[in-house]
Amino acid sequence: MNRKDISHRLTTIEGDLVQLAGPRHGFHLVTLQRGKQVQTHRGVIDHDDLIGQQWGSIVKSHSGNPFYLLQPSLSDILKSTKRNTQIMYPKDIGFILVTMGITPGVRVIEAGSGSGAFTSALASMVREKGKVFSYEILEDKQKLAKENIHKLGLDAYVEFKQRDVRFGFDENDVDAIFLDLPNPYEYLYQVQTSLKNGGFFGTVLPSSNQVIKTLLELKRNPFAFMDVCEIMLRYYQAEPDRFRPTDRMVAHTGYLVFARKIIKEEQIINSEN
Amino acid sequence: MNRKDISHRLTTIEGDLVQLAGPRHGFHLVTLQRGKQVQTHRGVIDHDDLIGQQWGSIVKSHSGNPFYLLQPSLSDILKSTKRNTQIMYPKDIGFILVTMGITPGVRVIEAGSGSGAFTSALASMVREKGKVFSYEILEDKQKLAKENIHKLGLDAYVEFKQRDVRFGFDENDVDAIFLDLPNPYEYLYQVQTSLKNGGFFGTVLPSSNQVIKTLLELKRNPFAFMDVCEIMLRYYQAEPDRFRPTDRMVAHTGYLVFARKIIKEEQIINSEN
Amino acid sequence: MNRKDISHRLTTIEGDLVQLAGPRHGFHLVTLQRGKQVQTHRGVIDHDDLIGQQWGSIVKSHSGNPFYLLQPSLSDILKSTKRNTQIMYPKDIGFILVTMGITPGVRVIEAGSGSGAFTSALASMVREKGKVFSYEILEDKQKLAKENIHKLGLDAYVEFKQRDVRFGFDENDVDAIFLDLPNPYEYLYQVQTSLKNGGFFGTVLPSSNQVIKTLLELKRNPFAFMDVCEIMLRYYQAEPDRFRPTDRMVAHTGYLVFARKIIKEEQIINSEN
Amino acid sequence: MNRKDISHRLTTIEGDLVQLAGPRHGFHLVTLQRGKQVQTHRGVIDHDDLIGQQWGSIVKSHSGNPFYLLQPSLSDILKSTKRNTQIMYPKDIGFILVTMGITPGVRVIEAGSGSGAFTSALASMVREKGKVFSYEILEDKQKLAKENIHKLGLDAYVEFKQRDVRFGFDENDVDAIFLDLPNPYEYLYQVQTSLKNGGFFGTVLPSSNQVIKTLLELKRNPFAFMDVCEIMLRYYQAEPDRFRPTDRMVAHTGYLVFARKIIKEEQIINSEN
Repeated sequence: MNRKDISHRLTTIEGDLVQLAGPRHGFHLVTLQRGKQVQTHRGVIDHDDLIGQQWGSIVKSHSGNPFYLLQPSLSDILKSTKRNTQIMYPKDIGFILVTMGITPGVRVIEAGSGSGAFTSALASMVREKGKVFSYEILEDKQKLAKENIHKLGLDAYVEFKQRDVRFGFDENDVDAIFLDLPNPYEYLYQVQTSLKNGGFFGTVLPSSNQVIKTLLELKRNPFAFMDVCEIMLRYYQAEPDRFRPTDRMVAHTGYLVFARKIIKEEQIINSEN
Repeated sequence: MNRKDISHRLTTIEGDLVQLAGPRHGFHLVTLQRGKQVQTHRGVIDHDDLIGQQWGSIVKSHSGNPFYLLQPSLSDILKSTKRNTQIMYPKDIGFILVTMGITPGVRVIEAGSGSGAFTSALASMVREKGKVFSYEILEDKQKLAKENIHKLGLDAYVEFKQRDVRFGFDENDVDAIFLDLPNPYEYLYQVQTSLKNGGFFGTVLPSSNQVIKTLLELKRNPFAFMDVCEIMLRYYQAEPDRFRPTDRMVAHTGYLVFARKIIKEEQIINSEN
Repeated sequence: MNRKDISHRLTTIEGDLVQLAGPRHGFHLVTLQRGKQVQTHRGVIDHDDLIGQQWGSIVKSHSGNPFYLLQPSLSDILKSTKRNTQIMYPKDIGFILVTMGITPGVRVIEAGSGSGAFTSALASMVREKGKVFSYEILEDKQKLAKENIHKLGLDAYVEFKQRDVRFGFDENDVDAIFLDLPNPYEYLYQVQTSLKNGGFFGTVLPSSNQVIKTLLELKRNPFAFMDVCEIMLRYYQAEPDRFRPTDRMVAHTGYLVFARKIIKEEQIINSEN
Repeated sequence: MNRKDISHRLTTIEGDLVQLAGPRHGFHLVTLQRGKQVQTHRGVIDHDDLIGQQWGSIVKSHSGNPFYLLQPSLSDILKSTKRNTQIMYPKDIGFILVTMGITPGVRVIEAGSGSGAFTSALASMVREKGKVFSYEILEDKQKLAKENIHKLGLDAYVEFKQRDVRFGFDENDVDAIFLDLPNPYEYLYQVQTSLKNGGFFGTVLPSSNQVIKTLLELKRNPFAFMDVCEIMLRYYQAEPDRFRPTDRMVAHTGYLVFARKIIKEEQIINSEN
């Protein structure tokens, strides 16, 4: 099964990851497999009734409720990732990918693996020739991340490692390192050791206190071009006759902190001699 | 010259797209070429002095001012795109890519080409096997977009077409269509004709009036799962001892509108006969 | 009983409006009356145990739960107003008062009365010599507004009128008119008839469509200096060791629209002859 | 001259504070005085031509440019206050007034006086029977604040004191204290000494670091009900055919911190013996 092919087919085949979306009540992500069934709050659907169908068509559950058969976007996948921790949000992930130079071919380290949500975003982007190195201290957590990556057919682009980040990373000169850990400021030595010169460092932190500590440590290490920002995503009611923002919104997911590894001025001065 | 290789080299070679970043005053994007010079506000730099240097190192202009030699991220490229129109912002682009399923291998249509900024974001993501079809009515504008794409070495992944969108698109069953036009609501028939079932439609619109018209038309055509949102990006002063938001920010770039093409209910009912 | 005196006393007396605030679970507003009891989720408290106590002191319910005895702010009063409709938020009210010149002595019309929350804000500000004229079409609704104003001891500053706004207002040359109605654009003739030249008009509207209609009508009537804005209030967790925004927030209450009545240019030209 | 009367007159008299607003280019605040002139970028206007005119009418400068003759709102006054420091914004001031119980009759301390902008907001609200006590360490600054308060005819409601706040306040049992100082956390002992039990404390601080320090100190002193928030004000273009937010906005003025003075638990326990 090769996920890339999905975009060139108009009908589903066994092995496809599909999204079953009800008209107004959330959705299910399913990898199609002959003989299996999907259980929804609105009735049961046989995978066999989903295989060979056109994308975008309506299928009905045994109880007659309609579902659209769709290809999930990365955002849909992120939202439905089975999780054991707070996961990163699509609004933050899109910006991180664009800001940290994550494109096909790059080699990137992340720690921790979390539930594999951000891992899958990275893996989707770096393939075919790039690689994600995903570190996690807790075996249990990584198990779930591995399952999620496998479900998405992205195993070839991810190398999982179970290790405490304070013992460093195996890779050298990677293009980017992202730490989704509460205390990234304790691991900047390890980061700069494995990051190539000019490489991208990023992290996401819930509290101001953590950002303050991280900025302090970044200034003490060979980093420059620090940027801190936050992204607020505001949804609107998609009603043409009463267009207005939704009543409530997510107010905060985290502060994004970015920096780039540079060669220290003193090294420069030496090289000029 | 193969841009993919950049991420596996630690030093620059001729043909690399490099970013020269001053400590606090903007940056320059340059494609390295023997014998040429970069003119900056802080002095002249010979390309020959940049070729063969380590990424992340400091180079000095003839007048002694230091610049960091970096690989640009997609965000850096977007910010420095030579432009003749309002361009899309990295904050919006990242979210659009993640929301509209833009990953390696997909086929996507955009109109208009604009200055090629969003084109380059799409092209970076869909390679090696995907393709961007970029439509533009104005020859002059497209000329600049072509130049920008060429400068980035992304020509192989973009097919430019000069045409008024109301005459439709040549492609069928593409995965996604993004209209960066002031009146997308006039072209939804053309969109649904070329978009595959289940495919992603997206647009960005400055005013509520345009969103209202677009939602009305989406409801009259075979689209579902309409989402409207806006993304607010707020930067902070990266100062550990006085951490605070910057004084001013961009308040609005545009409302993002997304929808998916579905098969109309009546078609379903027929197919059930 | 004279509420003004509250601020010059350090202990409560019968008739005071007091706030009973639990350490982390909301609060109760009570007008003290000998012999009565407050029922809370954390036990019963006798009014007699509250009368003669110091402001800021802790009192305990029969079941031993502590409550702070406080004077409510206008914001506290607004939050706890018994309501039968969506009420206006303190964040919007504060800005409206400051923007529409609501200070002691002014005469202001509002329609509808709603639950009396905004009425009480206006009344608090215009006393002693100003007056609020509060119009409402529905008798039931106004009954609640009257009760709430009475509970706050503000009756002397409010004149309630039960009437459909399309039949106009009794007053002339008032300083300000605020319409909290879904269709203010239908009543601008009535507004300009009763508003003094230079007077302030304001309204709050949930949807863009309503704002668009209102702006159109304001331009057709003798108004100028239109301003539209919205206020986003973001709370933070008041924790010094993990200072961060709360996870969720109110994303939208309404667009605020302001304008000032002016004398039409043609009138001016005549007066110059 | 009695400012309260303004709202009951339809024409200007000598001594009125008037706003001269051009159709799209800012405004001037002027206290009318026979024989004087206003200099604007759009020509000169004689005060004599403004006295006895209707509010809301158009007057023309010697060069023929039109100006509306209006009564300023508190917000207009705040915006045009002659200043020597960063002043507080109407969006924040409205919310502070509503949250800190600032209504007619209250006694409130502020420090420092700044340019008198917030002082004038407080004075407008507390009159006729309330009082503002305004402390400032710098004589020069206070001079400007005094001038501004005098220009607004609010002298009767403000008592200025030139003093370093660390030596405490003369008043006892005031209803509210607002510190507009960079280091409010150093003066909480002085605040709690002069604030009545249950009274309101407030401050506005630009950086997270200052908020964190203030929260720490509030917890060490007899305060409860800490609230931290920020207010984002977003303006829209008031154009009915292209209704949209303005392109840029003020992103940050300051974090608002509120708390209430309470009687410490140990005092309670003693009083129960």
